[in-house]
Amino acid sequence: MQFTGSHIISIGQFERADIERIFEVADQMVPYAHRRRVTKVLDGAILGSMFFEPSTRTRVSFGSAFNLLGGEVRETIGFESSAIAKGESLYDTARVLSGYSDVISMRHPQEGSVAEFAAASRVPVINGGDGSNEHPSQALLDLYTIKKELQHHGRDDVDGLRIALIGDLKYGRTVHSLCKLLTLFKDVTIWLISPKELRMPGDIVEQMRTAGLTVNESDSMEDSIAHVDIAYSTRIQEERFASQEEANLYRGRYRLNQAIYTRFCEPNTVIMHPLPRDSRAGANELDNDLNDNPNLAIFRQTDNGVLVRMALFALVLDVVDLVDKYSSDVHWYTGSRF
Amino acid sequence: MQFTGSHIISIGQFERADIERIFEVADQMVPYAHRRRVTKVLDGAILGSMFFEPSTRTRVSFGSAFNLLGGEVRETIGFESSAIAKGESLYDTARVLSGYSDVISMRHPQEGSVAEFAAASRVPVINGGDGSNEHPSQALLDLYTIKKELQHHGRDDVDGLRIALIGDLKYGRTVHSLCKLLTLFKDVTIWLISPKELRMPGDIVEQMRTAGLTVNESDSMEDSIAHVDIAYSTRIQEERFASQEEANLYRGRYRLNQAIYTRFCEPNTVIMHPLPRDSRAGANELDNDLNDNPNLAIFRQTDNGVLVRMALFALVLDVVDLVDKYSSDVHWYTGSRF
Amino acid sequence: MQFTGSHIISIGQFERADIERIFEVADQMVPYAHRRRVTKVLDGAILGSMFFEPSTRTRVSFGSAFNLLGGEVRETIGFESSAIAKGESLYDTARVLSGYSDVISMRHPQEGSVAEFAAASRVPVINGGDGSNEHPSQALLDLYTIKKELQHHGRDDVDGLRIALIGDLKYGRTVHSLCKLLTLFKDVTIWLISPKELRMPGDIVEQMRTAGLTVNESDSMEDSIAHVDIAYSTRIQEERFASQEEANLYRGRYRLNQAIYTRFCEPNTVIMHPLPRDSRAGANELDNDLNDNPNLAIFRQTDNGVLVRMALFALVLDVVDLVDKYSSDVHWYTGSRF
Repeated sequence: MQFTGSHIISIGQFERADIERIFEVADQMVPYAHRRRVTKVLDGAILGSMFFEPSTRTRVSFGSAFNLLGGEVRETIGFESSAIAKGESLYDTARVLSGYSDVISMRHPQEGSVAEFAAASRVPVINGGDGSNEHPSQALLDLYTIKKELQHHGRDDVDGLRIALIGDLKYGRTVHSLCKLLTLFKDVTIWLISPKELRMPGDIVEQMRTAGLTVNESDSMEDSIAHVDIAYSTRIQEERFASQEEANLYRGRYRLNQAIYTRFCEPNTVIMHPLPRDSRAGANELDNDLNDNPNLAIFRQTDNGVLVRMALFALVLDVVDLVDKYSSDVHWYTGSRF
Repeated sequence: MQFTGSHIISIGQFERADIERIFEVADQMVPYAHRRRVTKVLDGAILGSMFFEPSTRTRVSFGSAFNLLGGEVRETIGFESSAIAKGESLYDTARVLSGYSDVISMRHPQEGSVAEFAAASRVPVINGGDGSNEHPSQALLDLYTIKKELQHHGRDDVDGLRIALIGDLKYGRTVHSLCKLLTLFKDVTIWLISPKELRMPGDIVEQMRTAGLTVNESDSMEDSIAHVDIAYSTRIQEERFASQEEANLYRGRYRLNQAIYTRFCEPNTVIMHPLPRDSRAGANELDNDLNDNPNLAIFRQTDNGVLVRMALFALVLDVVDLVDKYSSDVHWYTGSRF
Repeated sequence: MQFTGSHIISIGQFERADIERIFEVADQMVPYAHRRRVTKVLDGAILGSMFFEPSTRTRVSFGSAFNLLGGEVRETIGFESSAIAKGESLYDTARVLSGYSDVISMRHPQEGSVAEFAAASRVPVINGGDGSNEHPSQALLDLYTIKKELQHHGRDDVDGLRIALIGDLKYGRTVHSLCKLLTLFKDVTIWLISPKELRMPGDIVEQMRTAGLTVNESDSMEDSIAHVDIAYSTRIQEERFASQEEANLYRGRYRLNQAIYTRFCEPNTVIMHPLPRDSRAGANELDNDLNDNPNLAIFRQTDNGVLVRMALFALVLDVVDLVDKYSSDVHWYTGSRF
């Protein structure tokens, strides 16, 4: 695809070459994200951060990514303005707000809303999540993490990946997107581990099989995580159930801890999770005793999110080749953060 | 007036020469707002954006205007702090907060509050709306838009303007301010079109007549828009009525769409609206079928708001003559936004 | 202590030499805070401003301090994210959010939470208040103000200070911290003036006496303020009482106004208050008729807060010796603010 000036709305936009381009640019962002260098390539540019549905993690990640490229951020959180309550259309909102910035990152509770907004926007829009529909930068950071973790263990690429997705596969937006992305790769084997009632939607399973993936479904975790490169755990999306009682049926159903990991997993099996993980006693899908396990990649995932979002901004605003030109040394304490 | 270091509280502060000076500086801001150039003239300066009453549009417009001059923005939205609930006076709030910035843009639900705050502030304060009282930057951007639209159609200035104000003329703060501004110009003819119950307040009508304007009042739209340069529509301020039932009496009373426009208006009649426009089926004061009409100026209004606010900041902080000196090229994608 | 890379959690971390170092750096920040110079020493650095409990004053003060050093600020206010509601631990929150910035300023309603967060954070954390526990930057700005006010009246240092603390000494977090800080100095005499029910906790009184301070307790203001350098008034923390009725018993118990000041205080007795002061008629602990009294230092306190916070950032990020190197002239209107 042509990145310059484009909206980033859906992972369906990407071919494999596009993914590889994004990841190549993400790699280029490492010295800046790790504070070994500072770049001011977007000095004077403004990001309109429009989080009509609040999300600290995603919002701050986008905002910091833009700051790390030298740009400014103007934020809106929630429906503070009553403009929409006063009957303003998404078309009008987009026409107006896109006049205030150079690029927009947007989350909205309604499916399809970001695409509708983008159609009226005069600047590129990056989807930060539209209801249960899409959250492309999350899927990209997940796949980027998979690639980096495999590389760390001496593997070349995502081809040949063996991965288990565990937990709520019915309502989890991130696993849906990740499955779609995986159809772009070869020889992928996937275990879908969930209670029967929270299975991966059939059309996505079908899509994967059509693309040549080997798909196994199971409701038992222990056997299924025995021969995978990645165990990707998810939170039960309790807020999506009709009642807390119904949600409770599934709470704590799949728990991974160090003892289970040691007993069932191959050495160096990587543990991922889209976060937040539910650390309450009753849920606890990833036990805190995994925190010292070097294969727990969950915080590398969020760090990688900054790289991927920097890459998207750099591509969409066409400054990839200028990032280094406008760079300089860092002269403040950066410790041993990364 | 002397702009340097002054508060901008009320349109009553301005003489015609002041308006012309503001508009001249707004014109100078075009290359920066349109991202053909970047300026860092206010690099290191801080705007305190104090929106005690939320307003996404106005807040982001002020913030982006300040960023476009190179400055930083520190924001406060709503009465998040309980300081006022704890009995803090506006005097104390102003003395404290004005120590954190170089200039303040402020909205507050209470009439006169911004002037009271400004009296105690140690830095210039720009009124972003104080209840139903004043919103000077909105009136300025409306008048600036009128001037630019007339120029686009070969007219020299606002003198000789024929304008229709349509809708809720009783509660609409922006039309009140606009009427006061128009008294500074010559040979202006104005049609005030509203239901009898929502007429323009008598003192403003009187003020216009005293200043030499020709004022016509009517409750019928079609005839009144036949010979104007500008048809300025407004939203029924439903939230100002005692009940939704009462508000509903006026909803959808004046609807302008392409068919009515074609039938009644002169060619090139400019359509304006302070936004948000109510696009719900029952209201729909400006139909979406006008969106492709090149004379629909409503989004040029909000774009012009950035120019006018940049001009106010540059004037109040006395950097008008330095803006170009601290400028440089833009090297990221800017598309065809303007 | 070693400031570089350290968390600033509690005033218990500091020895006298540390306080003196902080104040020395705060003095160095004056030209920047007073807008006589601009520094960009932290150009490219990001402050994560995490106010899980809202506080306009403290939040904006930290944010502006960071901007004045040239850095960017990414803010989170309140528990907007439902991550914590979804069962995320403070450990996870800290690990994730610390990946987005170079330093964090944080307020949280729960005692000990900031220390817990800091333990998991990968970047330095500065405590902006954790419940009724600690608020070290407030104590530092109070002590810095005491020192500057004494210097203004020809005194060398805080040694020999005579100070009266007036009002709610039981619930007032700031006076507790200030008392602890004063134990680092010599020959300090302190009057604790409160209703019996709102006395300073016994352990703090004990701590001061052990450190050699002369401590007097009284429930009468007039006599106690007769021979002090500083009269430090505080607000009754009405929100901490079981009922408004109970709080009302203490409202307005100690009121200082110009007449009382003239009659009882020595000339040049300095009046301080942690703010907000309650200016409602029934409370009114510091009357507005003191606003013109040159010894009313309450707004110099909040101004000094910016200096102290700039100093903490500069020390923790180890740029003290570079601040002037990256400085330049200010070319916009700065008036006579300071």
